Amino acid sequence: MKNYDTIIIGGGCVGFGTAMYCGRFGMKTLVLGDILGGTIILTHVVENYPGFVRLTGQELSDKLKEHALDYKEFVEIKEEKVTVVEKEGNLFKVISTDGEYLTKTLIFATGTQVRKLGVPGEDTFSNRGLSYCALCDGPIFRGKNIAVVGGSDSAAKEALLLTEYGKKVYIIYRGDKIRPEPINMERVEQKIKEGKIEMINNTNVVEVKGDKFLNKVILDKPYKGSKEFPIDAVFVEIGHLPLSELAVKLGVKTNEKGEIIIDRESKTNVSGIFAAGDVVDTRFKQAITGVGEGVSASYSAYMYLKEQEGVYPTTTPGYKAKNHIAEKEMKRIVTEIKK
Amino acid sequence: MKNYDTIIIGGGCVGFGTAMYCGRFGMKTLVLGDILGGTIILTHVVENYPGFVRLTGQELSDKLKEHALDYKEFVEIKEEKVTVVEKEGNLFKVISTDGEYLTKTLIFATGTQVRKLGVPGEDTFSNRGLSYCALCDGPIFRGKNIAVVGGSDSAAKEALLLTEYGKKVYIIYRGDKIRPEPINMERVEQKIKEGKIEMINNTNVVEVKGDKFLNKVILDKPYKGSKEFPIDAVFVEIGHLPLSELAVKLGVKTNEKGEIIIDRESKTNVSGIFAAGDVVDTRFKQAITGVGEGVSASYSAYMYLKEQEGVYPTTTPGYKAKNHIAEKEMKRIVTEIKK
Repeated sequence: MKNYDTIIIGGGCVGFGTAMYCGRFGMKTLVLGDILGGTIILTHVVENYPGFVRLTGQELSDKLKEHALDYKEFVEIKEEKVTVVEKEGNLFKVISTDGEYLTKTLIFATGTQVRKLGVPGEDTFSNRGLSYCALCDGPIFRGKNIAVVGGSDSAAKEALLLTEYGKKVYIIYRGDKIRPEPINMERVEQKIKEGKIEMINNTNVVEVKGDKFLNKVILDKPYKGSKEFPIDAVFVEIGHLPLSELAVKLGVKTNEKGEIIIDRESKTNVSGIFAAGDVVDTRFKQAITGVGEGVSASYSAYMYLKEQEGVYPTTTPGYKAKNHIAEKEMKRIVTEIKK
Repeated sequence: MKNYDTIIIGGGCVGFGTAMYCGRFGMKTLVLGDILGGTIILTHVVENYPGFVRLTGQELSDKLKEHALDYKEFVEIKEEKVTVVEKEGNLFKVISTDGEYLTKTLIFATGTQVRKLGVPGEDTFSNRGLSYCALCDGPIFRGKNIAVVGGSDSAAKEALLLTEYGKKVYIIYRGDKIRPEPINMERVEQKIKEGKIEMINNTNVVEVKGDKFLNKVILDKPYKGSKEFPIDAVFVEIGHLPLSELAVKLGVKTNEKGEIIIDRESKTNVSGIFAAGDVVDTRFKQAITGVGEGVSASYSAYMYLKEQEGVYPTTTPGYKAKNHIAEKEMKRIVTEIKK
């Protein structure tokens, strides 16, 4: 079993940015990600990561990964899904689809997964006209009528992207008015003027129907005289659920939304466990704020390791290990496991 | 007098990153900076802003500025030193060397200034052999013997840079052992092996002396048999002082180091005032964490404006102003001032 100073669970922007800093600190670091790249690779255009005026989500993710691997003496990145994380003495055991690892610290950068509509027909027509990713599936529906369900900034951006392919894009939103960033609101308003986007407000989708492929949605109130609304594709963009389950099993506290509660140094309530990015309880979540949190997490993990070694670099000059407690503890556990 | 939704005081990385987000929010934004670019432009190589493997401080700052000005419909950047900031009803009046402005919100991204040694001769020989910036003045001392005073990561980086010019670089440090990031410690150790760097630990500089130019430092304990240490140049790198004075005058609370106390949303204790970057009480300060804080500050400022308008975008769909209280208040004050 391989041993690490830290294992970062999550192979997105935040995981990579965090790994780069861990590498700078000389920490033996492993990044484990289900799908490397993270959710940002599903974003068509990123124009709000300060320093890059405009690039694709894939490009941003690649740049952050490349930066982390500039410290490849210390940093490994593997595409493996973590299935179990357990406490092992002072350490943590991480079991993935492909291996088992021991680590002194854990950083959760697990992000979120898409929230489903939860209506009849959703699973049946998933990938048969129903999608959660405009960037992935938009081009399939060139010249078709498309619905986007949701009212967030993400929903607006999905709708804007889909106008590049679709004949017309309908935004179906349960509230009075969608609430994207002002700059995206303006863009939506422009597309409405051009007849490329149409709003269906105060309305919920209660079912999706079709034959071999999805061909209509059922609304909870009539639109143009009917609750049956014929459509070629539905893109669901109603938010995300934090992937905090593994952390919760280790005793990490979450808020009412299931987001991991961290402090300003990205520490959780459990010693040796840190978290950053979309999975945490920050109100305004952006790629840049998540990466910033990850950098703080790397620092906190580094300081934790130094404290374990019995020296406190913030107060004492000269931080080299004199008595590497955690290292000894790790050797003991490794020996025990081999028995 | 011109009116703004927000004025960002500070024209460095954090100011620019914050301005970009304010622009995206459609806020009328003014950035006022004493010297545009910020302290990072004095940094030779930046290799820890996630996304850019390696670039100069000037390049990073330029990229962030360019990004902010991509929203020039909303964002102005001016090289002006702010001298006074006052409360004016619900607004703030900002007086600079070149103008007066009114704003609904303030974001402090003022950063720090260098800390001086505070020893006899320091001011006399400043710019005559004594410097606070290796990148600026290093090339002057090609082939000379150079001392760096300090033990931080910055001091180590200054020393490493100076080995590119100097015959030999002495690091004079008051503690047992300097405490840079591990990666820079390794680099220093390599230079020590090469005979390019030498450490003088547990030692303080108590005076700098010279003729027309600095030519020696006086130490508080003998080095190689003498307290008089002949040297051609001294670079002082013993830390920075937060530039929080203007904020303090507005009632903003600071900690014992004079750093502005913020919460996780970059709010200060004063309503309508936010802060980010080197001037705040974050323990691990990096360009990336400062920019992240600035982005949170922009969001908090935006939310504050919306609350002033009597609508709450987080809870109510549709965030457009119905009753623009702050706008009215601003008009009232402008009218009064004109009288």
